[in-house]
Amino acid sequence: MSIDEIVVKMARAAKIAAGKMAVCPAAEKKNILFKIAEKICKQSSYIKHENEKDLERANKMKLSNAMIDRLIISDATIKSMTDGLKEVGQLNDPVGTLSETAIRPNGLQVARMRIPLGVIGIIYESRPNVTVDAAALCLKAGNAVILRGGSEAFYSNQALSHIIGNAFIEEGLPKDAVQVVPVRDRSAVNVLLQQDEYIDLIIPRGGEGLIRFVVENSKIPVLKHYKGVCHVYIDAGADFNMAEQICFNSKVQRPGVCNAVETILIHRSVAQDFLPGLTKMFVRSGVQIRGCSEVCLIVPEAKEAIEEDWPAEFLDLIVAVKVVENMDHAMEHIKKYGSNHTESIVTSDYGRGRRFVREVDSSVVFVNASTRFSDGNQLGLGAEIGISTSKLHAFGPMGVEELTTSKFVVYGDGQIRD
Amino acid sequence: MSIDEIVVKMARAAKIAAGKMAVCPAAEKKNILFKIAEKICKQSSYIKHENEKDLERANKMKLSNAMIDRLIISDATIKSMTDGLKEVGQLNDPVGTLSETAIRPNGLQVARMRIPLGVIGIIYESRPNVTVDAAALCLKAGNAVILRGGSEAFYSNQALSHIIGNAFIEEGLPKDAVQVVPVRDRSAVNVLLQQDEYIDLIIPRGGEGLIRFVVENSKIPVLKHYKGVCHVYIDAGADFNMAEQICFNSKVQRPGVCNAVETILIHRSVAQDFLPGLTKMFVRSGVQIRGCSEVCLIVPEAKEAIEEDWPAEFLDLIVAVKVVENMDHAMEHIKKYGSNHTESIVTSDYGRGRRFVREVDSSVVFVNASTRFSDGNQLGLGAEIGISTSKLHAFGPMGVEELTTSKFVVYGDGQIRD
Repeated sequence: MSIDEIVVKMARAAKIAAGKMAVCPAAEKKNILFKIAEKICKQSSYIKHENEKDLERANKMKLSNAMIDRLIISDATIKSMTDGLKEVGQLNDPVGTLSETAIRPNGLQVARMRIPLGVIGIIYESRPNVTVDAAALCLKAGNAVILRGGSEAFYSNQALSHIIGNAFIEEGLPKDAVQVVPVRDRSAVNVLLQQDEYIDLIIPRGGEGLIRFVVENSKIPVLKHYKGVCHVYIDAGADFNMAEQICFNSKVQRPGVCNAVETILIHRSVAQDFLPGLTKMFVRSGVQIRGCSEVCLIVPEAKEAIEEDWPAEFLDLIVAVKVVENMDHAMEHIKKYGSNHTESIVTSDYGRGRRFVREVDSSVVFVNASTRFSDGNQLGLGAEIGISTSKLHAFGPMGVEELTTSKFVVYGDGQIRD
Repeated sequence: MSIDEIVVKMARAAKIAAGKMAVCPAAEKKNILFKIAEKICKQSSYIKHENEKDLERANKMKLSNAMIDRLIISDATIKSMTDGLKEVGQLNDPVGTLSETAIRPNGLQVARMRIPLGVIGIIYESRPNVTVDAAALCLKAGNAVILRGGSEAFYSNQALSHIIGNAFIEEGLPKDAVQVVPVRDRSAVNVLLQQDEYIDLIIPRGGEGLIRFVVENSKIPVLKHYKGVCHVYIDAGADFNMAEQICFNSKVQRPGVCNAVETILIHRSVAQDFLPGLTKMFVRSGVQIRGCSEVCLIVPEAKEAIEEDWPAEFLDLIVAVKVVENMDHAMEHIKKYGSNHTESIVTSDYGRGRRFVREVDSSVVFVNASTRFSDGNQLGLGAEIGISTSKLHAFGPMGVEELTTSKFVVYGDGQIRD
């Protein structure tokens, strides 16, 4: 079979499996997730053996240490995969729940019922644990999933796919509900992105290059997350200790992730008093400060920021700091340079807190808390499949519920329309 | 300016206006809708005068009577536009409402706040009242809107645009919140569909050709509604009188619309007794029946159906009728030939009613009611901008709320992440 034929066949089989998964009882979906966890645990040496093949190839191809690191399936990776499966297994099953019930004047009883989306395609880069994490969330929501991981993780992903498939067969569920594209060639992605007849949603996970490629080539709707250029704004009258803790935590607790702060905006009236203490904390932890000219006058440790620093996602121990005249200027800066991801205000003013929350156009807006809480787990979604920075369907961290949609169900007693 | 420049400039201006509309208080949004209604009413002779130019051109170009009919702005059209504006004005404003509030173990208070989508592009065919109806819903939800109507309605749409713009200026609101593309050339649509930097959503309204064109050429997400091939399934043991009424109403009350029934499926055990009565009703109203071979044996009035009749959207006084062995066969038929739009079951069986609702993969599923209720107004949404038959973001009739999305808002007391 050609690559085209393989991919189209997979997509068609996924559509059929999706029909079966959509009506699969919650208990069976929970059960299959636990079963997969059990099998992954039992067959960990097989998985690691296949993973070795990927690692050998990666070494031969002289991939970077960072890439090889992300590729390794260790005992800890296995534990995190199986823990994740059980956690998702325990979540509430959204499928079939009713909401927004209402009675119409003619007696029709209207409600919305949560239903799966159908077939979801996940396109991602090297880490093979995504194969398991993403499959678990899609399955919990009653969807079928087609996974296309990085070619570096080819053997690892095939091994995981094989194990998951066996679990489905043993449980009498449709094994095509989880399929890993068995083709290393990148043209398989292009074919996948054309299958809008069978696939309902594409979620790319990886660097900006991958995401742009998917967006530009997909006939299927894409839920995307570009970058996280997050801001903390320190308002006039903010509690300095709280502000310091939030700035520090937002930057230093894990600098390489999308919800770490990249730019701190400070109200002019507090800059002089607040900046020296914050700078001391940052410098002690090796954080480089890139400041506007006012910041540089107050703290000599700061390096003068250039224009490119304001829209930058440093993903590193670097932070841009700017003095602003008031909250309006802070919000203008966020609008101009932000990425609609996550922002936080530190304030003790009731009205400005309310205004910031209402007017800042980002997927998660905090008052008096670290930007690092912008995450599906932290916000109570249980687990997340990604963070959407575009507004359609979902905006912000996406959990199981965001992998569903709803239909109208209407109960009548013979009503007809006049 | 070139067409490209005109359209890009509009899109950029819309984005800026959207930022202002997003924070526009509910009372002001209501007020501007009433203001537009008042101005349309006062300037009806100007509107009709401009409409005359379109009609003259349409006559010269020998457009069909049906098309010319849809183009006419009569006093009744004006009244329906102004009534619609006031109705939408009176709806609850969704923007800023909080839902799914929760407290996290660390005390963070999490909620979702409903917010506008941003800039919505509406691409539609001849009827100029869509200009007003679509603008009203988009505005109510706090969005900016770019309208591109059919070239046949060029002068009418420009006149309406002019009036709406003046209302915005008088009320001190951003007039770029509603813009009508001032270019007759179709290439303007192509340019519009590339403005994913400024436009958040495209809604095409019109025939299948227009919708396919938009889907295939848009870089912006599209909410689409292809066709409505709706089914009514008459279950074993159904109340015959109720079943007759529902079949008749679903087909005859308004045959030319997407929620009219196209195929009736009848359980074999009741076909013999039920069909003659139903046929009599249909024949009396001029409905042509295209039946499967079993139907043709029972009612000689039926013409033998061909394969093309099962997936057909007749939009006419024609109905396909098929005898099925049981509900599973009915659901298989719906899966194979349906369009995920609307289906109804007539039954007195509790379990089968529940199963049909759960398992049928359509945007609206009825038990014991006419398919004609599949409509935003009838289901209580107040007004509708269209019916989505794809699942992402919205599935089924879309009202004001479907023109919004939600962001997370999180209130803390200085929480930082461990």
